[in-house]
Amino acid sequence: MVRRSIPDIVVGRLPVYLRALSFLLAEGRQITSSQELGDRLGISSAQIRKDLSHFGEFGKQGTGYDIAFLYDQLRQILKVDRMWDVVLVGAGNLGKAIADYGGFAGKGFMITAIFDNDPDKIGKPMGINNLIVRDVSELANAIRSSEIKIGIIATPARDAAAVAKAMAEAGVKAILNYAPITITVPAGVRVQYIDPVVGLQRMTYYL
Amino acid sequence: MVRRSIPDIVVGRLPVYLRALSFLLAEGRQITSSQELGDRLGISSAQIRKDLSHFGEFGKQGTGYDIAFLYDQLRQILKVDRMWDVVLVGAGNLGKAIADYGGFAGKGFMITAIFDNDPDKIGKPMGINNLIVRDVSELANAIRSSEIKIGIIATPARDAAAVAKAMAEAGVKAILNYAPITITVPAGVRVQYIDPVVGLQRMTYYL
Repeated sequence: MVRRSIPDIVVGRLPVYLRALSFLLAEGRQITSSQELGDRLGISSAQIRKDLSHFGEFGKQGTGYDIAFLYDQLRQILKVDRMWDVVLVGAGNLGKAIADYGGFAGKGFMITAIFDNDPDKIGKPMGINNLIVRDVSELANAIRSSEIKIGIIATPARDAAAVAKAMAEAGVKAILNYAPITITVPAGVRVQYIDPVVGLQRMTYYL
Repeated sequence: MVRRSIPDIVVGRLPVYLRALSFLLAEGRQITSSQELGDRLGISSAQIRKDLSHFGEFGKQGTGYDIAFLYDQLRQILKVDRMWDVVLVGAGNLGKAIADYGGFAGKGFMITAIFDNDPDKIGKPMGINNLIVRDVSELANAIRSSEIKIGIIATPARDAAAVAKAMAEAGVKAILNYAPITITVPAGVRVQYIDPVVGLQRMTYYL
């Protein structure tokens, strides 16, 4: 499989396709088309075909895509056909909601450690996996010893930069940041922002 | 300004540009380029120029974009140069985190009503605006009487479909859904999903 020089923006759309496929699977569907996917996602069918063509042939002209096959292929391409350990920092309301989130199951991710700096939170169990919240001072050692590559930041904005720095120094390569602040990371570390404002602003244009 | 037939996917990128511009403004910068924006966002500079060209001329060849001007223009285009009232349903951990979220300020949105179906939550103040959580049975009337167009769903997955239906019937046209489930809405209503899995899967490809 050719993996060189796939544009970031193409890779960024694959999880959206994957989610749409998982919805179709949940609906009991077997075959879909770039047209149907495009209609659901607000993306042109030509764009979807072009995006997928970077990675191989997933459907035959006129017969559409086998949903389960395409779903499996995209999971492999995105490397979520395995389970990634994830470290979560921040055990406030947002951290609790993330630790309780039912949507990670089967998507390739499991939160395996939770950290906070609040003595009232440290030592208490949290989330669907009943993890004990640990002192954030142990964060770097925990990441190193478990070789965790993925971190989620759910701290207040003022703490996010320091947490990101600690994560990156300890070996985290992918950070999902919920704090409403930009964070700077070394080359080789990626950051994605979870920002409700972006989601809302995508819709106000049409109001 | 020509607003016909702008592709959804172009509109969808504008909030991302807007956020990048707000970060640049916060850094005290005055001028940027499609190249710099592209490098920050993982989008080609040609794509950014093409996207912006749908809406007018925002920069001169060779001199780059005036950040504050482009920021203001995009806010107008996205209609977030005003304040939108937002209704939030779900006053659990996630709802609390959203009600406490500091990132809405100045971005065009203010949560003005919060609803839940839990008697233990109803009647108690929540969030940075100290709103009293109201009974979800009052949701439709509240939306109608305030002509609220935007809703956020932060309920468990099992309740999301009913809440979306109630919102849409009462006049909401834009729904931001945090529940890990697809929701179906009537034509003319838009849904955006906040899904940490999509953010994480955008990065695992590179691990």
